[in-house]
Amino acid sequence: MQIFEKISIVGFGKVGKVLYHYFSQKGVQIEQVFVREITELQKVHPVIPFSDDIFILKAVDLILICVQDDHIPDIIQKIPKTQALAYTSGSVELTAFEENVGVFYPLQSFAHLPDDAIPHIPILLEAKNPRFYKQLEEFALRFFNTCHSMSSDDRKQMHIAAVIANNFTNHLVHLAQRHCEENDIDFNLLKPLLLETSKKWMTHPAFDLQTGPAKRGDHKTIEQQQEMLSLEQKDLYDVLTKSIHQAHKQ
Amino acid sequence: MQIFEKISIVGFGKVGKVLYHYFSQKGVQIEQVFVREITELQKVHPVIPFSDDIFILKAVDLILICVQDDHIPDIIQKIPKTQALAYTSGSVELTAFEENVGVFYPLQSFAHLPDDAIPHIPILLEAKNPRFYKQLEEFALRFFNTCHSMSSDDRKQMHIAAVIANNFTNHLVHLAQRHCEENDIDFNLLKPLLLETSKKWMTHPAFDLQTGPAKRGDHKTIEQQQEMLSLEQKDLYDVLTKSIHQAHKQ
Repeated sequence: MQIFEKISIVGFGKVGKVLYHYFSQKGVQIEQVFVREITELQKVHPVIPFSDDIFILKAVDLILICVQDDHIPDIIQKIPKTQALAYTSGSVELTAFEENVGVFYPLQSFAHLPDDAIPHIPILLEAKNPRFYKQLEEFALRFFNTCHSMSSDDRKQMHIAAVIANNFTNHLVHLAQRHCEENDIDFNLLKPLLLETSKKWMTHPAFDLQTGPAKRGDHKTIEQQQEMLSLEQKDLYDVLTKSIHQAHKQ
Repeated sequence: MQIFEKISIVGFGKVGKVLYHYFSQKGVQIEQVFVREITELQKVHPVIPFSDDIFILKAVDLILICVQDDHIPDIIQKIPKTQALAYTSGSVELTAFEENVGVFYPLQSFAHLPDDAIPHIPILLEAKNPRFYKQLEEFALRFFNTCHSMSSDDRKQMHIAAVIANNFTNHLVHLAQRHCEENDIDFNLLKPLLLETSKKWMTHPAFDLQTGPAKRGDHKTIEQQQEMLSLEQKDLYDVLTKSIHQAHKQ
């Protein structure tokens, strides 16, 4: 089986950038990095082989497409059908594409991700062609601790779970931070609480960890807090309080 | 200044239980532990000096009241005015109470809290009488790394921030877990993502960490996900997506 040694990357956003640096550092030969505009980037990263014309593509073992979901079909269309490629999206279905197209979805959030976290990213793989799948798997396991075969449908459900458990929770932490700033109290005091709860998530079902006024059905505290919130916060407070109450009332 | 060496505890729920064991282990003399019904508890914990009658109270240096908010005024009323006491609530105002009453609020969630996390709990203190405050502070700092003076108003705001950043985020993790179970996909794959994001909260503003379809304004993925959700999930999804969009549109 031919292994993937020489690759190119399309896109240099959060995902493309992290993967470029990680693979380079691991000795993977990166032939081209496609971006829409290269002028500024070339000044900052003079060593990276940027290109802004996908039509002057060199043949490589694999092209990794790390662009926004909407642009994936368009990019795939521009690349010769004989070229093996994989995209890094959680939501784009594989069904619509050709035999040489696969999915290489790193289930992680790339904003401010420390280097030592990269090998632990679970890679979710999909490919119609079993030989191509094997090659993707070999490539993934050369650089990451685990990879998993996952269908487009399951990957979409996983992406929803990631949005709920990561994007939404992160936003709530931001709102709590803003609440502290607006009320001139120290958000840092909440850090031991956040840290311990997230450590507990590794070993306990979140359901068993729930505490607080909504879980207890403590209407007096709930009403007191509702009165102290801004209108925007109140919507969120009410829908989440109702949902906690619903989940724990049985 | 007389230091607090002999205490009693009212309530043996999550907070009372953890504090009882922690203080006992640290050599604090615990005179009485008041509960509503002792029969079953005495079988499980034969060594603990349970009592179910607050009126046969022995004089101690401090009584810690670890009961639900609603019951605090009633308990305080039953204890002689000369007895120093403090309650562990985030939301109950101090204004209504006497000189010998203070607040000893541990800003942490006590469900499945590991022993090694206990000394790191920030203790928020309040007392009208400066001498009593000093005694509370000395007591807190003997067993915990940090304590902070905080007014009732600020403590209430902190409690709201804790509900948002901890109870609400924990519930979202539960919903993600349920979503994985219902769709027969492995929640464990999300753990590296949860772990890394929570570590980032210690050092970065959550606002700078936001990723995902709502932040990007990726309407196609948002609509696709909305169609895949149950009605209960959809309410939450919509209000959180709107709130993320609102926060990041500037």
